[in-house]
Amino acid sequence: MIAKTPLPPYYAVIFTSIKTGSNTGYEQMAVRMAELAQQQPGYLGMESAREETGITISYWESLEAIRHWKNNSEHLLAQETGKAQWYEAYKTRICLVERDYGFKKEEHS
Amino acid sequence: MIAKTPLPPYYAVIFTSIKTGSNTGYEQMAVRMAELAQQQPGYLGMESAREETGITISYWESLEAIRHWKNNSEHLLAQETGKAQWYEAYKTRICLVERDYGFKKEEHS
Repeated sequence: MIAKTPLPPYYAVIFTSIKTGSNTGYEQMAVRMAELAQQQPGYLGMESAREETGITISYWESLEAIRHWKNNSEHLLAQETGKAQWYEAYKTRICLVERDYGFKKEEHS
Repeated sequence: MIAKTPLPPYYAVIFTSIKTGSNTGYEQMAVRMAELAQQQPGYLGMESAREETGITISYWESLEAIRHWKNNSEHLLAQETGKAQWYEAYKTRICLVERDYGFKKEEHS
C-alpha cells in the first residue's frame, strides 16, 4: 500500500533494519505497533516491506507527533525487545518531506 | 543493507511502488539503475525491499544531485517504461533527513 499522505510539508520516519534469526514474538509486535501507531495523534500513514533488509516508513504531521510516538510506553518496550532480540542492526532517519508526486495507471475499459 | 550515510543533513528520495503483472525487463532495469545511481555526483547510498509494496530509498547530498539523477537520460527512459509497463502506481517523496540514529548488536566472543 502507498500511504495516502496530505500535501507536503509533513514528516517521515524511515526505519531500516536487519533482523537476527530470533523471531519469537516479532510478528505479533509488528502488527500491534502498526495498529497502535494509527491511534497516535498526528499519524498520517505507514509503508513497509522486507526482504534481506526491512524498511518501514511512518508519516507524521510534526516532530512533536514523532516524539510522542517514540515515547509511547508500549512502543518503548517493543524498542527494547527489538534491541535485545529481533534486530542485528537498524537505523532510524527523521525526515522532512518537502515535495512529493505520484503516478497511477489509468483504467481502460 | 543499511546505507552508510554521513551525518545529517542530507536528502532522501523515497520511491514507493505497486507493480503490475508485467515483469519483462524489470529486473535488468532495477540492477542497472542501482549501478547507474552509484555513479552519479552526490550519491550517498540506497536501500530497497519489496513485498506487496516496493520501497526504494536513495540518499543524496543535495537537491541539485537529485535533480541531476532524475534527468539522467537512461533513468528518464526507465521512468517512462515504468509508467507504461511495470508500475500500477507509485509515489516519490523528496525529503530532508534532519536527524538519524542507529543500533548495532555487539559481538560477544
